[in-house]
Amino acid sequence: MAPPPNLRRTYAGRRVLITGGLGFIGSNLARALVGLGARVAIVDSLVPEYGGNRRNLAGIAARVRVHLADVRDWPRLPELIRGQDFLFNLAGQTSHMDSMTDPQTDLDINCRAQLAILEACRQHNPGIRIVFASTRQIYGRPDYLPVDELHPLRPVDVNGINKLAGESFHLLYSRVHGIAATALRLTNTIGPRMRVRDARQTFVGVWIRRLVEGEPFEVWGGEQWRDFTYVDDAVDAFLLAAARPEAVGEIFNLGGPPRVTLAHLAELLVELNGGGSFVVRAFPSDRRKIDIGDYYADDRRIRRRLGWRPRVDLRTALARTLAYYRKELRHYV
Amino acid sequence: MAPPPNLRRTYAGRRVLITGGLGFIGSNLARALVGLGARVAIVDSLVPEYGGNRRNLAGIAARVRVHLADVRDWPRLPELIRGQDFLFNLAGQTSHMDSMTDPQTDLDINCRAQLAILEACRQHNPGIRIVFASTRQIYGRPDYLPVDELHPLRPVDVNGINKLAGESFHLLYSRVHGIAATALRLTNTIGPRMRVRDARQTFVGVWIRRLVEGEPFEVWGGEQWRDFTYVDDAVDAFLLAAARPEAVGEIFNLGGPPRVTLAHLAELLVELNGGGSFVVRAFPSDRRKIDIGDYYADDRRIRRRLGWRPRVDLRTALARTLAYYRKELRHYV
Repeated sequence: MAPPPNLRRTYAGRRVLITGGLGFIGSNLARALVGLGARVAIVDSLVPEYGGNRRNLAGIAARVRVHLADVRDWPRLPELIRGQDFLFNLAGQTSHMDSMTDPQTDLDINCRAQLAILEACRQHNPGIRIVFASTRQIYGRPDYLPVDELHPLRPVDVNGINKLAGESFHLLYSRVHGIAATALRLTNTIGPRMRVRDARQTFVGVWIRRLVEGEPFEVWGGEQWRDFTYVDDAVDAFLLAAARPEAVGEIFNLGGPPRVTLAHLAELLVELNGGGSFVVRAFPSDRRKIDIGDYYADDRRIRRRLGWRPRVDLRTALARTLAYYRKELRHYV
Repeated sequence: MAPPPNLRRTYAGRRVLITGGLGFIGSNLARALVGLGARVAIVDSLVPEYGGNRRNLAGIAARVRVHLADVRDWPRLPELIRGQDFLFNLAGQTSHMDSMTDPQTDLDINCRAQLAILEACRQHNPGIRIVFASTRQIYGRPDYLPVDELHPLRPVDVNGINKLAGESFHLLYSRVHGIAATALRLTNTIGPRMRVRDARQTFVGVWIRRLVEGEPFEVWGGEQWRDFTYVDDAVDAFLLAAARPEAVGEIFNLGGPPRVTLAHLAELLVELNGGGSFVVRAFPSDRRKIDIGDYYADDRRIRRRLGWRPRVDLRTALARTLAYYRKELRHYV
């Protein structure tokens, strides 16, 4: 699936930095940008608990410059940011549970390092164009569904509090310092190159791993509603957001194909896999305390303003993801 | 003015820690707690740009234990927090302009250190009762007036973003980890022992300094609405909040006597001072970018739920403050 052709004009020959670029969405974005003729550089720390994996660059590694660096390492930021035309800022700690047991690490990456990145832009490259990977987690437990961008922000865990601060810094620097930034509030993103070793990035990852390994997977609760964006559609949104001047200083939810319950998603996966099983368990109590209940996004704003359209339906998204891990699983576990 | 008498039962003989306790509100709170028979310990860093001043303990210094320490110095936190019954958590960087020019310092104090304090409580003293000094700054530019606790949270500067994260951590630790905490969202607090050297704590401070020195002070704009809490009334609110079980996990705005415009406040100060003058200037452009416009609080929630009542009207508040600095100014400049 090729991105919209007019994006080639925006990105061909341009210098692009992707933080978290060895990770799930970051690497898919790098692949698309290489295809568009951009000069792609990646920063990734390869922290074992996070999403980075060298395998994610298979086939494009020679056309991408990789800096093994941590965004918490401030002195390195100026050299990385200087001279770049675009910054896709995806580096983050994504596990909600880890944010509760090791809150300071979550803060240092999702909040403090974000401010350091923005300060480096302000001091060394104020003309850079930024898109920040925010999250639906900052809404907390929805007051209403679907959740639009005007919904109150009441995060229910340390990760959500820090991601909200990180997003707020981006919008503040855009408004006050003129560092053009857009925030995309992602929901569950799925697809090839996602972390499947465990549920740190998304529970769908560990479900797929277990299915491919021929083991039953666990569904907690099962009646919760969720929505899913296929990674190529998420990549389109990042590319569009950075390309459009009207997106500067703005926030957009990403959604995707129609919502499903977790139980329905589990059944669909088993069907597409041509077999397999799952066990429904009660929600563990330590997770219930920080659970957001039902969520699905109202994504009409990005559709209307930027013309974004998800192009991959849920069945196709899951089938492609299963096919990828049937072939590639050994590189991801 | 003595605090309500039933508070003596809550605090007499109890161990109380005040972060930022050499500062404006912290030292007035320490004075009240000493009067109530509490065993008061203070943590303060005496950073020259902040509110701490040893003069603020004049008359009670022998009855208070002072730890010169910075809340950013995590290894010291467990020893300070262990064994305390109450924590009044007032340490903070208060200057909005400084938060824009040195954002990382603001983050380290108002956000990162707050999480470290809460982690120290969770690990070493989970039964402690906390009241956190939050701020109206987290609302940003009001959508409506007066601003109640349901108003959207959209901070307009780095200080507001970090204070919001700091408040959110307190409420999260209360909800998830059972560390009983209450947040008070303060508006402009005025009274004896406030910082008057400059406008880093409140612009009223530098107005009063200039008046007492016989110099004209500057009013920026003048038509903005603001409300003011006299420090003794703010102290009452902290003491009440920590004493009341129904305040656990809750947020309360503080307000006070009726709102005034800055121009009216300036005229009132000149009148009470028996002379003096001010110059009205246009709002400086670097400050306009982070200005919140008009603000005054709806404080009915704390009045209704905790029975808090401001007892000092604005004229009395200003007159007492002027009288204090006429005598004490040399210790504060």
